[in-house]
Amino acid sequence: MPVGTQGTVKGLTPLQIEETGAQIILGNTYHLMLRPGSERIRQLGGLHRFMAWKGPILTDSGGFQVFSLSQLNKRTEEGVTFSSHIDGSRHLMTPESSMKIQEDLGSDIVMAFDECPPGDADYDATRKATERTHRWADRCLAAFKGRNQGLFGIVQGGMFEDLRTESVDFLKERPFSGMAIGGLSVGESKPTMYRILRHTAPLLPREKPRYLMGVGTPADLVNAISVGVDMFDCVMPTRNARNGQAFTSEGLINIKQARFREDNTSLDSKCPCYTCRTFSRAYLHHIYRAKEILSSVLMTLHNIAYYQNLMIQVREGIENGSFEQIRQTTIKQYGALDIAGSLEEL
Amino acid sequence: MPVGTQGTVKGLTPLQIEETGAQIILGNTYHLMLRPGSERIRQLGGLHRFMAWKGPILTDSGGFQVFSLSQLNKRTEEGVTFSSHIDGSRHLMTPESSMKIQEDLGSDIVMAFDECPPGDADYDATRKATERTHRWADRCLAAFKGRNQGLFGIVQGGMFEDLRTESVDFLKERPFSGMAIGGLSVGESKPTMYRILRHTAPLLPREKPRYLMGVGTPADLVNAISVGVDMFDCVMPTRNARNGQAFTSEGLINIKQARFREDNTSLDSKCPCYTCRTFSRAYLHHIYRAKEILSSVLMTLHNIAYYQNLMIQVREGIENGSFEQIRQTTIKQYGALDIAGSLEEL
Repeated sequence: MPVGTQGTVKGLTPLQIEETGAQIILGNTYHLMLRPGSERIRQLGGLHRFMAWKGPILTDSGGFQVFSLSQLNKRTEEGVTFSSHIDGSRHLMTPESSMKIQEDLGSDIVMAFDECPPGDADYDATRKATERTHRWADRCLAAFKGRNQGLFGIVQGGMFEDLRTESVDFLKERPFSGMAIGGLSVGESKPTMYRILRHTAPLLPREKPRYLMGVGTPADLVNAISVGVDMFDCVMPTRNARNGQAFTSEGLINIKQARFREDNTSLDSKCPCYTCRTFSRAYLHHIYRAKEILSSVLMTLHNIAYYQNLMIQVREGIENGSFEQIRQTTIKQYGALDIAGSLEEL
Repeated sequence: MPVGTQGTVKGLTPLQIEETGAQIILGNTYHLMLRPGSERIRQLGGLHRFMAWKGPILTDSGGFQVFSLSQLNKRTEEGVTFSSHIDGSRHLMTPESSMKIQEDLGSDIVMAFDECPPGDADYDATRKATERTHRWADRCLAAFKGRNQGLFGIVQGGMFEDLRTESVDFLKERPFSGMAIGGLSVGESKPTMYRILRHTAPLLPREKPRYLMGVGTPADLVNAISVGVDMFDCVMPTRNARNGQAFTSEGLINIKQARFREDNTSLDSKCPCYTCRTFSRAYLHHIYRAKEILSSVLMTLHNIAYYQNLMIQVREGIENGSFEQIRQTTIKQYGALDIAGSLEEL
């Protein structure tokens, strides 16, 4: 899922998003509740109409951003009190208000409001956050009234296998429409993330969508898919694009490098996207250096198309038995870790 | 002509430019010669291929920007020595080098290298600049070797009718493919600009395209058309768009105003562009306030479409006799001056 934080996938029109092959996008509840406000979006016909996106939308719960972006946040059993990063205004967010806000936004997939401990939290802090996440999950289920919406539960448990198992066990009995793995890619090392991921993902019920939140690189995706993950969201393709970084069949390249100044070939010779069909690396280099808006647009278009095309190949590969080969190729392209490596390697 | 200064109409893909109805765009020789360099663009296949624009391109001569953007410029009979605004490097631009650079860029319409005096230049300074412009025009004609390119002459003469007449008389005998009026919208008052425009435009040969450079508002365009102008370029639709200003059938509006926060209507109810077909003012207000790239994209798309649609109406109006009514309506929408007013009014 491309990330459309403030009601826009940065730089792209909905038509351009569609053109990348993306079928579903993510909206950030925290940003939208503060500006323009979820009540206003509801009055304007909901987030789909507001941003003119016809496909499905998943909204996160706001919980992660409340911790990471807002100032002066204070957590209690009731919820989280925080100051807006925009104007400093005080807000209280609870499982109940998160459900109400996401209902107002009218997203198709609503995420439970959880407490995500930092990557270096100790066992006791992680256990407490995980247990609170479970109590909040039940409050979300009780408060959730979304019509034509699905509610996903979020597994926590930090970097501790037994807490992850407990969290899956607690949540898998509940009537969630899908299950997410939260609390990864929050500052821990990649080997730790892979260790927890390969422990947790296989525990999730196979009949529900399995969603790894906030991850990751192309290699992360194919690795996670190999242990059972179905869905991802990440700002990486969009954010890196704005910094001149492109994901390609040759790995990650940075278009601002002088070696591309006179390069009349396309950004990725294997990519069928508009950017690669139409422009040279020399042109993309030029508009990046000239700080042109079109640089963000064209690079974003390509990176999202790259991710979507990788997922198309993966889906086909799972059908026709070539998935493992795609995974190995991708790992090699990015010089990445193999999630199937030994625990010592991880 | 939308302005594509650095090889991109800011924010829009070539497909989006096409969609606005624009048939020809302008590129700035000064910017492109400094970055990425005209020689490099030639090696990469020319400006059309570089920026993937299939329609015609007009390039200015670089003269105006050399005076207005570069530092430490020094004018002699040979040409202009100046420092790049990007890296301070020293360059000499002459009529001959301007022809060569525009040939390298491969534009369809090449502009003569002229000397544009400031709007408040006195008679003597203006006369000298105009006479030099004429000598340079002959040097441009002698140096111009463009295949499949046309060369336009530029009328100068500042705010003095007799110098404008002399300039037209000098240039109209030469084998230019079109004639441009330069040296307006350079700091003079609107009445002064209209006075000179209505004196000069009718003097131009009717069988060649008549191009008013760097102008202007929608009212300026319909006023200039009424005295015979055929072509325009201006950064106004694109630059204003990035500042939140939209040209509409209700006149100029600024989308950042709080009154648009909950306005679920389109930016301009009479406009058929993608922005107006797809998004509400409330959404455009939101993404402007959130400083989203898409704000520049969608507002630019609309403003260029607005200008193009105005020109479509004008062309139809000239055919079917309704042009004067369109002109009056546009003047009223923008509370603008009427170029046909008395000299006292101007």
